[in-house]
Amino acid sequence: MDIQRLNTNETDFWKKLDKRLAWDSESDHSVIETVNGILADVKSNGDKAVIEYTNKFDRMQATSFAELEIPQSRLQEALENITAEQRTALEKAAARIKSYAEHQTMDSWSYTEEDGTVLGQQVTALDKVGLYVPGGKAAYPSSVLMNAIPAKVAGVPELIMVVPTPDDEVNELVFAAAAISNVDRVFSIGGAQAVAALAYGTETVPQVDKIVGPGNIYVATAKRMVFGTVGIDMIAGPSEILVVCDGKTDPDWIAMDLFSQAEHDEDAQSILVSPDADFIESVMQSIDKLIEEMPRADIIKASLQGRGAVIQAKDMDDAIEIANYIAPEHLELSVDNAEEVAKRIKHAGAIFMGRYTAEALGDYCAGPNHVLPTSRTARFSSPLGVYDFQKRSSLIGCSADGASELGKIASTLAHGEGLTAHARSAEYRIK
Amino acid sequence: MDIQRLNTNETDFWKKLDKRLAWDSESDHSVIETVNGILADVKSNGDKAVIEYTNKFDRMQATSFAELEIPQSRLQEALENITAEQRTALEKAAARIKSYAEHQTMDSWSYTEEDGTVLGQQVTALDKVGLYVPGGKAAYPSSVLMNAIPAKVAGVPELIMVVPTPDDEVNELVFAAAAISNVDRVFSIGGAQAVAALAYGTETVPQVDKIVGPGNIYVATAKRMVFGTVGIDMIAGPSEILVVCDGKTDPDWIAMDLFSQAEHDEDAQSILVSPDADFIESVMQSIDKLIEEMPRADIIKASLQGRGAVIQAKDMDDAIEIANYIAPEHLELSVDNAEEVAKRIKHAGAIFMGRYTAEALGDYCAGPNHVLPTSRTARFSSPLGVYDFQKRSSLIGCSADGASELGKIASTLAHGEGLTAHARSAEYRIK
Repeated sequence: MDIQRLNTNETDFWKKLDKRLAWDSESDHSVIETVNGILADVKSNGDKAVIEYTNKFDRMQATSFAELEIPQSRLQEALENITAEQRTALEKAAARIKSYAEHQTMDSWSYTEEDGTVLGQQVTALDKVGLYVPGGKAAYPSSVLMNAIPAKVAGVPELIMVVPTPDDEVNELVFAAAAISNVDRVFSIGGAQAVAALAYGTETVPQVDKIVGPGNIYVATAKRMVFGTVGIDMIAGPSEILVVCDGKTDPDWIAMDLFSQAEHDEDAQSILVSPDADFIESVMQSIDKLIEEMPRADIIKASLQGRGAVIQAKDMDDAIEIANYIAPEHLELSVDNAEEVAKRIKHAGAIFMGRYTAEALGDYCAGPNHVLPTSRTARFSSPLGVYDFQKRSSLIGCSADGASELGKIASTLAHGEGLTAHARSAEYRIK
Repeated sequence: MDIQRLNTNETDFWKKLDKRLAWDSESDHSVIETVNGILADVKSNGDKAVIEYTNKFDRMQATSFAELEIPQSRLQEALENITAEQRTALEKAAARIKSYAEHQTMDSWSYTEEDGTVLGQQVTALDKVGLYVPGGKAAYPSSVLMNAIPAKVAGVPELIMVVPTPDDEVNELVFAAAAISNVDRVFSIGGAQAVAALAYGTETVPQVDKIVGPGNIYVATAKRMVFGTVGIDMIAGPSEILVVCDGKTDPDWIAMDLFSQAEHDEDAQSILVSPDADFIESVMQSIDKLIEEMPRADIIKASLQGRGAVIQAKDMDDAIEIANYIAPEHLELSVDNAEEVAKRIKHAGAIFMGRYTAEALGDYCAGPNHVLPTSRTARFSSPLGVYDFQKRSSLIGCSADGASELGKIASTLAHGEGLTAHARSAEYRIK
């Protein structure tokens, strides 16, 4: 297969790498216009507008909003409709995701100063969260678990899921995952109209405080636009994997790990970095050998040829520098002493340590979240976690003595900023 | 003064309150066009474009970028130029902000499962952070401390501050605050061009990973537009205070606390809630009495009359319900047992407990950050903190046994999602 080959020895290596990594996430003008119209319509006309868009875009025949709500009994039914093996797999995955998430819970804290002044931070859960789940082919039950379980661990009392069911096509695994995750309400709506319903509320859909979950360009654009009215999670770009390998892993394993990212869609990005030129050749041979067995071979080829790369590094230090520059969503350290190497990684969404730790294990069931920062945003952002469904309030309680002392400092600084009322308010509290 | 009076007994109370709280934060079309042009120009032309915009908008005469960098020696000089009282106040405030921030630092953690599989979370600091500080009249040295100190406590190695100096006008207190906060580099640039320089990097200005700090509509719009390329803090709306008082605090104190928010600008919002009708009248009298002494009386009047309100609640439970609905940036609980009442507050940026705890003390020197979520966004967001300058990477290290067990679950779920390469990648690791 014709995959771009790079070598860190080349003088224009970083320029070529930058070009390979570049991804423009901006929505085009026509998408923005369409979404704007839908948002305004749902804000004004509520349920009625959502029904109309749903009938139009998802080819449904709903006459009342009640038909678009999926009752809990239907979710329970889905649990019966899937195979026992699937149900066990979902339940085991859910238990592991929950167990990991419980380690992330933030607690309130406070401390008292000598003069009796109390300072602290009070942690509370969000009241209502909306979870967007894509319908049709891109419906991933694992995403329901990964988004819903941390919210429930955080203590969110009301979790509302929206999932389009175009042509009334239902994904039993998605409904089953919703049942296992204790989602509170489910509506079979999608697109920008579902985002609008959650952001503004309608007669039937409760207004939420934050909307999470992946979606197409219309959903992503709508989320970006309602940000501020509600919170949103990150806007995800195409999924990526960077495999750093010392050359001692079975090349078939590495080829398949690269495929597992590439099969998501044509824009997904799989990159291999290794200091071992012979190993890189072996992986290329494995790729050519294994590609024929893949049902999604066309997508994998388009992804690897259009956005993939194999990079020959000088040594492991060089490979680590590249990993930190790329700040990948998924980083596989298929090397000896992976835990030690991981300590040198500054930027990555998730770090998969050692030859046994295939990224696919993390996608489904290892425990940590599979919603991760893409497109180099791991430089400044984190995986989805319990902390995304909690927030903090500062606590300040001054004793009479404390207020008197702090009042003097505040008065000086307030006068320096020309804010007399601030100064006076502080001075009232000086003894 | 003619301030809107509301009573929770009124049938249309919530509708009236919503109207009073409404704030449209969207940028208008012409601002977006202007900012778009500046961003594109700086991205293409780097230093040269920034110099041109700075000379034009800030009426400067720079011929090289070197003239726009403020050396550390100049910051140290500012420490000498301010009064000893100001320097002590800044240093005391800085020490308290640092001490509180140190309580917020996140640590890495991991745990090992029975089969040897390791799961965890690795916490790292951001590499480079840009700090926007407004110039001219709105220059607040306290904001330099509040933004810079948490970044340094997080361990950010390179903190780059930009502050416009229109007509070469310099704010000595701002420079002194930069010296005290250990800011690494300072450039005298501002506006959308400064945001662009930090987001894309120029020949002289390093590209940062996140931009924080307040600014005017052009700065806010630019930050919103570069989000994704870099991280940003929240886009702040006008500042607000909600005072909940049981009627037992000196009405002059409460009037001045309301003024201290209102004096920021005409759009600031000060609201008083009390179950005590007589007390509300006393505060109104204090307002009329004290307003005449205020240098910024015009701004205070415009703010209180245009956006302020006094609300009579049925009782304290009712008052708390209103506070949770408003989710105010600043919440003063001027009541008995304020610490107990605070536990019932679900949504607020900062909670000021007790009659002595004037909001102004928190603005400057109590310790907790004064950069807080506005416009009801405390429903889903938090004060600026050390955690905003750290990020997390998930850690997954499967043992051979662990990978084998997880591989089975992943294989089942991957086949259910139609992702064969995921399944095969997991199956390679099954014993």
